[in-house]
Amino acid sequence: MTRVAILGAAGYTALELIKILLRHPQVEVTALADRLEGQPHVAAVHPSLTGRLDLRLEHLSPAELAARAECVFACLPHGVSASIVPQLLDASARVVDFSADYRLADPEVFATWYNQKHPDPGRLGKVVYGLPELFRQRIVAADLVANPGCFPTSAILPLAPLLREKIIKPEGIVVDSKTGVSGAGRTPRLTTHYPECNESISAYNVGRHRHTPEIDQYLSEAAGTRIEVVFTPHLAPMDRGILTTTYSWPNGEVGEEKVLGALREFYADEPFVRVVDHLPGTKDSLGTNFCDITARMVRGRVLTISCLDNLLKGASGAAVQNFNIMYGYPETMGL
Amino acid sequence: MTRVAILGAAGYTALELIKILLRHPQVEVTALADRLEGQPHVAAVHPSLTGRLDLRLEHLSPAELAARAECVFACLPHGVSASIVPQLLDASARVVDFSADYRLADPEVFATWYNQKHPDPGRLGKVVYGLPELFRQRIVAADLVANPGCFPTSAILPLAPLLREKIIKPEGIVVDSKTGVSGAGRTPRLTTHYPECNESISAYNVGRHRHTPEIDQYLSEAAGTRIEVVFTPHLAPMDRGILTTTYSWPNGEVGEEKVLGALREFYADEPFVRVVDHLPGTKDSLGTNFCDITARMVRGRVLTISCLDNLLKGASGAAVQNFNIMYGYPETMGL
Amino acid sequence: MTRVAILGAAGYTALELIKILLRHPQVEVTALADRLEGQPHVAAVHPSLTGRLDLRLEHLSPAELAARAECVFACLPHGVSASIVPQLLDASARVVDFSADYRLADPEVFATWYNQKHPDPGRLGKVVYGLPELFRQRIVAADLVANPGCFPTSAILPLAPLLREKIIKPEGIVVDSKTGVSGAGRTPRLTTHYPECNESISAYNVGRHRHTPEIDQYLSEAAGTRIEVVFTPHLAPMDRGILTTTYSWPNGEVGEEKVLGALREFYADEPFVRVVDHLPGTKDSLGTNFCDITARMVRGRVLTISCLDNLLKGASGAAVQNFNIMYGYPETMGL
Amino acid sequence: MTRVAILGAAGYTALELIKILLRHPQVEVTALADRLEGQPHVAAVHPSLTGRLDLRLEHLSPAELAARAECVFACLPHGVSASIVPQLLDASARVVDFSADYRLADPEVFATWYNQKHPDPGRLGKVVYGLPELFRQRIVAADLVANPGCFPTSAILPLAPLLREKIIKPEGIVVDSKTGVSGAGRTPRLTTHYPECNESISAYNVGRHRHTPEIDQYLSEAAGTRIEVVFTPHLAPMDRGILTTTYSWPNGEVGEEKVLGALREFYADEPFVRVVDHLPGTKDSLGTNFCDITARMVRGRVLTISCLDNLLKGASGAAVQNFNIMYGYPETMGL
Repeated sequence: MTRVAILGAAGYTALELIKILLRHPQVEVTALADRLEGQPHVAAVHPSLTGRLDLRLEHLSPAELAARAECVFACLPHGVSASIVPQLLDASARVVDFSADYRLADPEVFATWYNQKHPDPGRLGKVVYGLPELFRQRIVAADLVANPGCFPTSAILPLAPLLREKIIKPEGIVVDSKTGVSGAGRTPRLTTHYPECNESISAYNVGRHRHTPEIDQYLSEAAGTRIEVVFTPHLAPMDRGILTTTYSWPNGEVGEEKVLGALREFYADEPFVRVVDHLPGTKDSLGTNFCDITARMVRGRVLTISCLDNLLKGASGAAVQNFNIMYGYPETMGL
Repeated sequence: MTRVAILGAAGYTALELIKILLRHPQVEVTALADRLEGQPHVAAVHPSLTGRLDLRLEHLSPAELAARAECVFACLPHGVSASIVPQLLDASARVVDFSADYRLADPEVFATWYNQKHPDPGRLGKVVYGLPELFRQRIVAADLVANPGCFPTSAILPLAPLLREKIIKPEGIVVDSKTGVSGAGRTPRLTTHYPECNESISAYNVGRHRHTPEIDQYLSEAAGTRIEVVFTPHLAPMDRGILTTTYSWPNGEVGEEKVLGALREFYADEPFVRVVDHLPGTKDSLGTNFCDITARMVRGRVLTISCLDNLLKGASGAAVQNFNIMYGYPETMGL
Repeated sequence: MTRVAILGAAGYTALELIKILLRHPQVEVTALADRLEGQPHVAAVHPSLTGRLDLRLEHLSPAELAARAECVFACLPHGVSASIVPQLLDASARVVDFSADYRLADPEVFATWYNQKHPDPGRLGKVVYGLPELFRQRIVAADLVANPGCFPTSAILPLAPLLREKIIKPEGIVVDSKTGVSGAGRTPRLTTHYPECNESISAYNVGRHRHTPEIDQYLSEAAGTRIEVVFTPHLAPMDRGILTTTYSWPNGEVGEEKVLGALREFYADEPFVRVVDHLPGTKDSLGTNFCDITARMVRGRVLTISCLDNLLKGASGAAVQNFNIMYGYPETMGL
Repeated sequence: MTRVAILGAAGYTALELIKILLRHPQVEVTALADRLEGQPHVAAVHPSLTGRLDLRLEHLSPAELAARAECVFACLPHGVSASIVPQLLDASARVVDFSADYRLADPEVFATWYNQKHPDPGRLGKVVYGLPELFRQRIVAADLVANPGCFPTSAILPLAPLLREKIIKPEGIVVDSKTGVSGAGRTPRLTTHYPECNESISAYNVGRHRHTPEIDQYLSEAAGTRIEVVFTPHLAPMDRGILTTTYSWPNGEVGEEKVLGALREFYADEPFVRVVDHLPGTKDSLGTNFCDITARMVRGRVLTISCLDNLLKGASGAAVQNFNIMYGYPETMGL
């Protein structure tokens, strides 16, 4: 049994995380922290949790959190997280960090894309990226895991094996993603106001979305050479789900079966990656921790199509998967 | 040709109003006013109007507005409207007021439901309610028209004729309404944040929605006796449209055909009320100025089911209908 | 450990049922039956189950089903179910029946509302209605449980305690319900074709919806007197969820707290009914087996507002709750 | 004044067409034809037209249609259209054909992509493609216009000018499109059943969508060299709208302003193409005949983002635009 706490408990990823943890037989949720006025009961913030968890969202210091829990899930904004995580680690908590703060290796790259100096640059490059399909062994013993971004997971899982195996070329990769609105978080803004985004689809942050360097870094690592993708996120009128379509060039003669075969082989033993023959829709993975992947050859180009639930495999599901690995529980427990 | 201005031009009703007015062959839109910083171009506020109207949203005084336009459409919040409309009238503009400020006859009732003292109580009770189906003759010569609320239009149109004809009893009327999200306006709030209200339906403001006294007043007038309805609005996951189901008791022996017949006769010459045999859905009236109405007898109870587009017959379409009547244009012009 | 089979495995209730049963630690799903050509693998019919369950949808006789499973969940259309359930019982299977066939006590009432002679009239009136909150003790030993309809559950749970306690009058009850589209099943029809029902809300089957006599019967039982409700279902543009608003007359002086208090007391020990103070939205219960209920007094009328997930507490969740009771498992297991 | 008829009047494009034509001051709709049993009134098929048009959907021969109307809008499936259009032309009607039958120049290409022999191969290559922005002069005198497909319009409008001006290379173009569900037509199918496609996004017909050769042909013409695009359509959970994101390689040094400038210059006098600086969403063009286009340079790649309403600029709006050109009416009349 492991005592866990959630920091930043008012958002959507925290809500999904709590729902999973309530089903997890080896977890006791002992503390919720956030900065809301009045330290409200969790059911006042998340009505769907009424009667399911009796905790308030408290104002808790890192030391107080570490006193209450062995593991802290930090659901904080970038920039903020890296100013608190070190204190949690110092207080001997292990941390799964949902923010982007520890995903990139290079503080300069962070500064360029996030328009701010990194608060904890010394740790960059040493934190494991919480994608078990690529880094499982390093997660086992980690005190801090950088939980991946939703778009990067949807792009790295289909592309990394193809780059490793040199089935596709590292140049000229296009990543065209479509996401549901929950990915934008719970703070009301005009762009996510219902009558603005309902019945509409649009591209956003073209050429400057902050998940770009994260995709670059882990694909580069898989390819063994520097990769820069063209990544375009689109906002689709639905709550949850990401569908990512990638376009890349094959290395020499490559047929559809070879691409699918490489993916199938790479993910043969993975509990949460399903390589499928059909064209998956986001609804297939809705409410689950699966990432569904298929591939097609079209006019000499390699296409991959992958989907996942951005709040689960793209966030809270992945976090619990990492937690299970860190604490030696069966990897699928609670998921 | 009539020069018109819009006050409060950044909202959804203003956007729909502009779209109608751009199609209206006898209207020139000469000014848009709002309080946004920088007085932006209308296309920056409403991208769908790009290339269609070359005006800025200016900070304009009532006198300036009246100098530019013969008729002003005031799309302002309640309370604010009644502090500006008198100045517009003094400056000789005619006004169609979208707010609730001039709909109620009694300043006490206003104060009770809107939690504020009315800024212009002397005018209450003298302003015509802009429901042409009931008050067309008084609209013709009006300098100020109180444009009806969206829910009241959907409830008064089916019920008023049945009350006038004493087909239903004035006691015990239930009005159960379902509305799209645009009715809540364009200001982002948690309740209208996409992931909160999408894929969900809920009741809101039960027993205290401000359209209640408006429905009471005009149904009472139709019945010739005091009516208090039980009105429950529900928020449905769609952009636009109101469906209102009412439940009332018949006066003696009443069959379905008698109810439908009374409605058909009452609205026989109306261009924008369609009494139909089938059960209408809000999509039937989406994008139009129609209100569709039908009726059923169920176990001795009279049911009416009516629908309209809350931004058109429930707001901007009705406003242009009133404008056409005020200026002697064909009532359907532009609609 | 109990072996279970599902009959009629291609529909939405079966899909949700399978997802629950896969999480249930005391269940083994041993057979799926349906009448599709080619007896396809379940993953071909329900892509979201890829890799999670390795069974085909077979053409199986009642005897074959009973040989493979102790308990059969029958997800069949009304009329069909009652021609197969007797054979399952004869073969010693216990059955949770999703159809309407065994919910009504009177074959005449069935014939009137379902336009057909009942295939197994002798059993009517002896089968327990699977609403554990009212009939738990009778479910324990039952060989056949009639799983309730989605609308009836949403109406009976808030109203039955108020009728039992004589807090409301049995006359003049209005039940106004709003449902998501999955309630209509998986067979494509024009009314549930996406561009027809999206962005639209409408009433349907007014005065003749088949859940009406079911609501009547169990409310009558609770009240100890004959009740006929006016029930109006509406189709809302969302996948799942039912919100039911009821209007009834209080017996004498009744305040809001008395109504809420009666509900709270009645459901104090129930794991799946949450009596709440706030106005619940269907999203609060989405993906769960909860029914959320609140109440309001409006102008002398008692209003209840309740919501649930039509595929869970309104169908498959309730079925597993019944199953757990029948087999002595903890009532919340798997849910 | 021109008398027009619609053949295939039960579908969505016909409905939108009728709505436009009812607003068109120089059009009289004289006949509607379809093959429904009972030849129902148009309001029975399209309830939103109740009270707006008093015609039945008749079974009419080409000769009968031509006798009633000067111009016929043929909203028929591919393959069917080319067996009827010749008879309409022989009977001296002018025709705007919504099907794909006359869009391609080469009967072999048609046979390959549509899996059937072309019924009227002799006419292929001689029919003008109804994209006024490229072929306005040829439309003026045409007796038959091939109305473009919705995806092709969204792809050709942004790319053709860039290819003509050699700003982008003809090789390696990716076209990633997202469409609302109405594009799939009005026949209920499982893939467009509300609970299947709501809250989900998916790719479909990858590598074999029939709009591919149409895009190829008109881009090839613009480029003066053979082009084969990689085209991937995605189904998004909304009624209407197409957003198309294209990825191509620049010819030498090209900045964002040069790309946007070329588009602005090319479309300077076009009434229905808006080259915009912001990232457009489909809602900006919803309910209009506009195609909104912008462009970005991302990591050395040229991106265009374009959107339109698939039922208007992508179908019925374009058809009326073509009609206006054919009959010498102002091009924007009714639109």
